[in-house]
Amino acid sequence: MRIAVLAGGVGGARFLLGVRDVARRDGHEVDAIVNVGDDAWLAGLRITPDLDSIMYALAGVNDAERGWGRAGETERVAGELAAWGVGWPWFTLGDLDLGAHIARTSWLRDGVPLGQAARRLAARWDLGVTLRPASDDAFETWVVTDEGELHFQEWWTRHRAALTARAFVQRGTAAPGEGVLEAIAEADVILLAPSNPVVSIGAILAVRGIREAIGGATAPVVGLSPVVGGAVLRGMADACLTAIGVATAADAVAAHYGARRDGGLLDAWLVDEADAALVPGIEAGGIRARALPLILRDDASRSAIATAAIAAALG
Amino acid sequence: MRIAVLAGGVGGARFLLGVRDVARRDGHEVDAIVNVGDDAWLAGLRITPDLDSIMYALAGVNDAERGWGRAGETERVAGELAAWGVGWPWFTLGDLDLGAHIARTSWLRDGVPLGQAARRLAARWDLGVTLRPASDDAFETWVVTDEGELHFQEWWTRHRAALTARAFVQRGTAAPGEGVLEAIAEADVILLAPSNPVVSIGAILAVRGIREAIGGATAPVVGLSPVVGGAVLRGMADACLTAIGVATAADAVAAHYGARRDGGLLDAWLVDEADAALVPGIEAGGIRARALPLILRDDASRSAIATAAIAAALG
Repeated sequence: MRIAVLAGGVGGARFLLGVRDVARRDGHEVDAIVNVGDDAWLAGLRITPDLDSIMYALAGVNDAERGWGRAGETERVAGELAAWGVGWPWFTLGDLDLGAHIARTSWLRDGVPLGQAARRLAARWDLGVTLRPASDDAFETWVVTDEGELHFQEWWTRHRAALTARAFVQRGTAAPGEGVLEAIAEADVILLAPSNPVVSIGAILAVRGIREAIGGATAPVVGLSPVVGGAVLRGMADACLTAIGVATAADAVAAHYGARRDGGLLDAWLVDEADAALVPGIEAGGIRARALPLILRDDASRSAIATAAIAAALG
Repeated sequence: MRIAVLAGGVGGARFLLGVRDVARRDGHEVDAIVNVGDDAWLAGLRITPDLDSIMYALAGVNDAERGWGRAGETERVAGELAAWGVGWPWFTLGDLDLGAHIARTSWLRDGVPLGQAARRLAARWDLGVTLRPASDDAFETWVVTDEGELHFQEWWTRHRAALTARAFVQRGTAAPGEGVLEAIAEADVILLAPSNPVVSIGAILAVRGIREAIGGATAPVVGLSPVVGGAVLRGMADACLTAIGVATAADAVAAHYGARRDGGLLDAWLVDEADAALVPGIEAGGIRARALPLILRDDASRSAIATAAIAAALG
């Protein structure tokens, strides 16, 4: 069986760990279609935070405690760059991480598409998941605020989402990355990871053709709520939801994605057991729903959640 | 007074330390016109070994023991690049050094000329010398061998000059770097550092207009022999001299540069005291010559040699 997962960074990575466990056990193939909206040019290097978070987590070299970057990281190069005023002082470039940025950028400068570069980097490990950037094109997310438009990283990492976002816009026009539409068309199951619905999943869906491909896919589409008990699990996704007029609630996010029968995306939606009371309302909207423990806290919970997501698709 | 010094990497750096001492003491300005033939694109980054060797030495952050690179260097990033097969495994990219390469490359990619990038890097310290790449253009030295043409770094660093060189060629056409011709025209003294006469000084002189500018300059031109007692002081310059048919001897190098009265470069030539017997022959060729201790071993010897070079120009 082939499973396609739309995913952002850290949340996507945690969910993919569970999907990989199930896939290895049951002999499935997994394609991760990964957000590139967080990407940036920084110090002349191409930074792809979501692809890297997923790669590092699947490779087991991520810093689980800090929640991002490589384990055992140092910042020798960053100290030099700061002395020359190169880069963003508020955006850490670790030494090990820079290895990936330099390698990727050297390939991109040679004309290698981003997807191939991502897979070259990933080939160092046995990830068990094929990484597919949503697009090989630059498609950066910018945030409209009352103080002007900021690159997503500046809004998120520098300002910690404290400037009120009025809208999120993608800069550039993006064609789907190599193999993305095929992965969707050939999937037996399509999963939306519990990633940020706006700047992660939303930025993937904004790539030309991807939303339509999911709508036209034969596979059932199952989403996992990133909102539990009215709060986001990670990061500052509530600020993103508020900006697009969506309440920070598991049923509101489901309604935002929409029921497939009505031209939306979802066949089914998983919410946390804390939101069990929302299930009837979601189902009344034409989306099958199920409540279960949805916190990705360890290997066992990640596998159980992935198993439930696949089961929800098939049943 | 204004002093222009043509210089390669390590030997040039040591000589410039002495020239700077004299310049600070006596209130002179120093322009270092630096070889770019050793430069390379590596891992998508622009590497400028001679500019860096000089910058690090003048800044006092060089690794004097190892003879190249930064003191206290580590190789965290290089380990990652090696895992991905990016770069040259035989060419070390230290972490601190990479800071300079990344900063420089980011500026170059933004359209900043190499000379401005070099001076931006140098502005972090009080070098006391203005760094001027011989050219802002790519002008890399390639080595013709029986096994084909190799980039200079591959021949020098990887093969330790063990493949017989048939010729050295510059790739590209290079205009003089910003301020180079002015530094030569306005100099009161022009010095040729005891650098490699072929791939360092020779590659500088190969930049369009530089040899002619020196020939037409009002300042006297004094060179320092990199050959002492029939052996080169550093590196494998003898292999370079052999390739162009010049004996590894202080008088042969002087003759190679040529007497200014005959259309060559030199008004005067300094040789080591070990080569005192060569002085009459050099002078018979129309080049004033003087023998003195020429080993750049410490601050005192460096200052003494720089003082002697300036004195030779003025007297």
